[in-house]
Amino acid sequence: MKLTVYLSGEIHTDWRKEIEYVSRQKSLDIRYLSPVTDHDASDNVGVEILGEEEKDFWKDHKAAKINAMRIKKGIEVADIVIVKFGDKYRQWNAAFDVGYAVAKGKSVIVIHPADFTHALKEVDAQAMAVTHTTEQAIQILEYLTK
Amino acid sequence: MKLTVYLSGEIHTDWRKEIEYVSRQKSLDIRYLSPVTDHDASDNVGVEILGEEEKDFWKDHKAAKINAMRIKKGIEVADIVIVKFGDKYRQWNAAFDVGYAVAKGKSVIVIHPADFTHALKEVDAQAMAVTHTTEQAIQILEYLTK
Amino acid sequence: MKLTVYLSGEIHTDWRKEIEYVSRQKSLDIRYLSPVTDHDASDNVGVEILGEEEKDFWKDHKAAKINAMRIKKGIEVADIVIVKFGDKYRQWNAAFDVGYAVAKGKSVIVIHPADFTHALKEVDAQAMAVTHTTEQAIQILEYLTK
Amino acid sequence: MKLTVYLSGEIHTDWRKEIEYVSRQKSLDIRYLSPVTDHDASDNVGVEILGEEEKDFWKDHKAAKINAMRIKKGIEVADIVIVKFGDKYRQWNAAFDVGYAVAKGKSVIVIHPADFTHALKEVDAQAMAVTHTTEQAIQILEYLTK
Amino acid sequence: MKLTVYLSGEIHTDWRKEIEYVSRQKSLDIRYLSPVTDHDASDNVGVEILGEEEKDFWKDHKAAKINAMRIKKGIEVADIVIVKFGDKYRQWNAAFDVGYAVAKGKSVIVIHPADFTHALKEVDAQAMAVTHTTEQAIQILEYLTK
Amino acid sequence: MKLTVYLSGEIHTDWRKEIEYVSRQKSLDIRYLSPVTDHDASDNVGVEILGEEEKDFWKDHKAAKINAMRIKKGIEVADIVIVKFGDKYRQWNAAFDVGYAVAKGKSVIVIHPADFTHALKEVDAQAMAVTHTTEQAIQILEYLTK
Amino acid sequence: MKLTVYLSGEIHTDWRKEIEYVSRQKSLDIRYLSPVTDHDASDNVGVEILGEEEKDFWKDHKAAKINAMRIKKGIEVADIVIVKFGDKYRQWNAAFDVGYAVAKGKSVIVIHPADFTHALKEVDAQAMAVTHTTEQAIQILEYLTK
Amino acid sequence: MKLTVYLSGEIHTDWRKEIEYVSRQKSLDIRYLSPVTDHDASDNVGVEILGEEEKDFWKDHKAAKINAMRIKKGIEVADIVIVKFGDKYRQWNAAFDVGYAVAKGKSVIVIHPADFTHALKEVDAQAMAVTHTTEQAIQILEYLTK
Repeated sequence: MKLTVYLSGEIHTDWRKEIEYVSRQKSLDIRYLSPVTDHDASDNVGVEILGEEEKDFWKDHKAAKINAMRIKKGIEVADIVIVKFGDKYRQWNAAFDVGYAVAKGKSVIVIHPADFTHALKEVDAQAMAVTHTTEQAIQILEYLTK
Repeated sequence: MKLTVYLSGEIHTDWRKEIEYVSRQKSLDIRYLSPVTDHDASDNVGVEILGEEEKDFWKDHKAAKINAMRIKKGIEVADIVIVKFGDKYRQWNAAFDVGYAVAKGKSVIVIHPADFTHALKEVDAQAMAVTHTTEQAIQILEYLTK
Repeated sequence: MKLTVYLSGEIHTDWRKEIEYVSRQKSLDIRYLSPVTDHDASDNVGVEILGEEEKDFWKDHKAAKINAMRIKKGIEVADIVIVKFGDKYRQWNAAFDVGYAVAKGKSVIVIHPADFTHALKEVDAQAMAVTHTTEQAIQILEYLTK
Repeated sequence: MKLTVYLSGEIHTDWRKEIEYVSRQKSLDIRYLSPVTDHDASDNVGVEILGEEEKDFWKDHKAAKINAMRIKKGIEVADIVIVKFGDKYRQWNAAFDVGYAVAKGKSVIVIHPADFTHALKEVDAQAMAVTHTTEQAIQILEYLTK
Repeated sequence: MKLTVYLSGEIHTDWRKEIEYVSRQKSLDIRYLSPVTDHDASDNVGVEILGEEEKDFWKDHKAAKINAMRIKKGIEVADIVIVKFGDKYRQWNAAFDVGYAVAKGKSVIVIHPADFTHALKEVDAQAMAVTHTTEQAIQILEYLTK
Repeated sequence: MKLTVYLSGEIHTDWRKEIEYVSRQKSLDIRYLSPVTDHDASDNVGVEILGEEEKDFWKDHKAAKINAMRIKKGIEVADIVIVKFGDKYRQWNAAFDVGYAVAKGKSVIVIHPADFTHALKEVDAQAMAVTHTTEQAIQILEYLTK
Repeated sequence: MKLTVYLSGEIHTDWRKEIEYVSRQKSLDIRYLSPVTDHDASDNVGVEILGEEEKDFWKDHKAAKINAMRIKKGIEVADIVIVKFGDKYRQWNAAFDVGYAVAKGKSVIVIHPADFTHALKEVDAQAMAVTHTTEQAIQILEYLTK
Repeated sequence: MKLTVYLSGEIHTDWRKEIEYVSRQKSLDIRYLSPVTDHDASDNVGVEILGEEEKDFWKDHKAAKINAMRIKKGIEVADIVIVKFGDKYRQWNAAFDVGYAVAKGKSVIVIHPADFTHALKEVDAQAMAVTHTTEQAIQILEYLTK
């Protein structure tokens, strides 16, 4: 079974590349989609294209809205949304993506360290699988597509 | 115009009571819904009704799923979802609720301190209003229902 | 929070009456809906109103379709669907109702004896709570509406 | 007319292979999807990838949720869902799939022995065709795609 | 169980009044909706309110669109749509209403004389009950709401 | 712009072939779908595959339900549904298809003789174009895809 | 038939009051909803509640988003949306409301002077009635609810 | 990420060609859709194919409905809808398209001169980006698809 998978969450590590690399090695029939993962480009795209803002709120606002077009498309065409919570930043956008994906009827796999269990309980409760490692998520994809 | 409003987020302060109190004083035609806000009851409901678990994960899981029935109903019947991010805890459930509400086509008002602006930019980008105080949220409700 | 609850499944015991009785005693703000629970009337309604059939298949077919109008309405207006699997009969209609309810975005509570755990795993996996007794289901409703 | 068909139900016989074999022989323009049909792999996938559980309930739960991702995708992209009830096991998952498929607006063909007629009447009432044999289901697909 | 029922089709006999009269006598908890049944008013409303037309097509067009607002609302709020095909006129609007109602997920009861069986087979195939008399339709409503 | 068009209605003339022939000649980028147009096969498919029936009602019923799987798929993947009403038969299935297509948000083009204007006013009122000839329908498709 | 009607468009004349006054006089069973019609309050609500902006764009943006919560709710609960285009201002918001209402499946009545016929042709094409006067719109409502 | 983009609005300048030209030069993976942009053909298509009308209203009506089939398809398959408001004409159809697109869950980019800011505030409030130039819109598409 061919799958389309959107990779949401953590952007300061290489977990997306790892998933895509192993998938190619195992010849899994999966198409991956992701947000823009160039942190600076993502933060500044609003003012760079649409013009400067004095207030940080509007600078962020314009960037977030442009990025939202790609994220929305990614989640909506996906069969499965994988969301990785890492140990840095507040990552509210990752939790937002899970809520959005669940409401759109997508199957969600969450990856997070064990010590986030209590804080992520409402998120995990909506997931079809909760893993501690990227490797486990890949194993699930391999199982589902074989 | 009569409104139904779901109050999501922070449960360790009295902001819901404040909104409901002012609404009554101003005779606003608004019905408020909220999650269970008794923190201990909410954390333990799974094991208390459905039986003990050795692993914290399943204890949390059973509680979160029971609570999800009320949260889902609350968001789905609401016209407007107000989500308050406070200065405590990770509050991923609040961000999840925004994602869920937006995908269900609800209007969202977000309340948060100014220093969360960058971290909440993807959440704020989907909101119809972003305020720093509960008072501002009430003013919006008063304006919308007059 | 006021709830509408549809009670699906087992019709040869008094579990619906038990739930409704306890709810009244505890003054829970819940409206209950159910299928026609008069087994004979339910089996024969097709031929009694629409005329005899030589083949059992069509006798059953006409009855099942008339009953489906009530079941469909019940599930679609419900916030929560409670489905009880008992120790008699094959109860495929109960499992059908869970599938239908889940696809319509309803929260499902499943009640079944412990020894059905493996056979009902796909059904339980979609439920927000799985209980062994009717009492537990009532406790959940009380918790959700308080 | 090209069709996508999901094959749900009985996994201990070769009926899926039979349908796919005859389809190839007759050059029917049909894409078939199915759940994982390796019974052991399907039962154990939860604990094998996500770690051991002491309670059977959670072992089953984790497996059923992983499998659900594939089943959900299969039903949702299908034009027609064929569900075969055999003479073994309780097969509540098959009835669940029919309920889910019907609620998602899919056309359903049910295959079952004649002596299940009364027990499956609510399921049959929602089907577009009820057959006793796999051959009949293939004939329908041939008719629909010619 | 309270029901909302839309009564579509034949407007030159008193079948709607018969259903409503018997319902009141039996105290059935049913709200009935119907199109405008004053044939002349219905045919002429377009030109009477919106101004004359030289071409019959536009006279009919304007009337049909105004009537459509009421029909659409009636079908969409109904749980059950009853459509009566009589022995006069072509009644394509009745068949249109069935198609519309089915696509909107409504349960449909069709009433028609026995000799329409072949001509109405596609319509009957989508109905939850097919009767020859108004009395049978009332019996079904009584059964469903008791 | 590439279009998918479902051709509903009249099956005793060659209008579908005419449309497809002209489309090929003009190289229009259109995929056509249609019901089974072999009248006898269509009428008898139910009993031929699923077994004899004594009552005509069930013979027709089984055939109509099998055909419905193809019609439903055809309408649901179409961008535009063209429905031709001819001078023979009652054609309630054609009117049903318009109602179904409109409720599913499809654009509908209706072809019918001028003297059906009054009888088809509710159907025409929902169409995006009403023509008297097949040629006009082709001209519209050519205009839309150029 | 009881109706809920949203009154969109022109806010510098008293047409809403006229409709509501005549409705009361004629005892029509209609609930009316409307946007905030205090022009200054509507323009300034963003900065008055949420704080000043240097750029007009953000001043307008914050106001428009707050107003959108009321407009969205109004259209979504309405059975019929009446939109009046007057002779002042560009009124793009009125045309936006028609597009939004049509996509949400609402019946739309448009009121506009005759000389807007060509400019509003795409809007009128989606309406169920087009009138030149408020009186005609009231006559339609009276006809639909009698 | 591959995108499908519908280009709505202004048809008397070459902005669509500019976007498509730059996209090809930059090898962006984007499919563009648009309405018929031949102004005369678009205005006259109704009477040219379906026959003359004495009243301008019906001439416009028939044309607008035929064009609506293409516009509807274009918006519904698009991921992003770009709408350009220019300095000519009333452009209510452009604002209608934004309303329709937003209600269908599409991401919208609006292009308009700075002096339309106040008049377009309700439209801009629903957009994911507002630009003054076509170049900026292209930059956004380049960013989203890289």
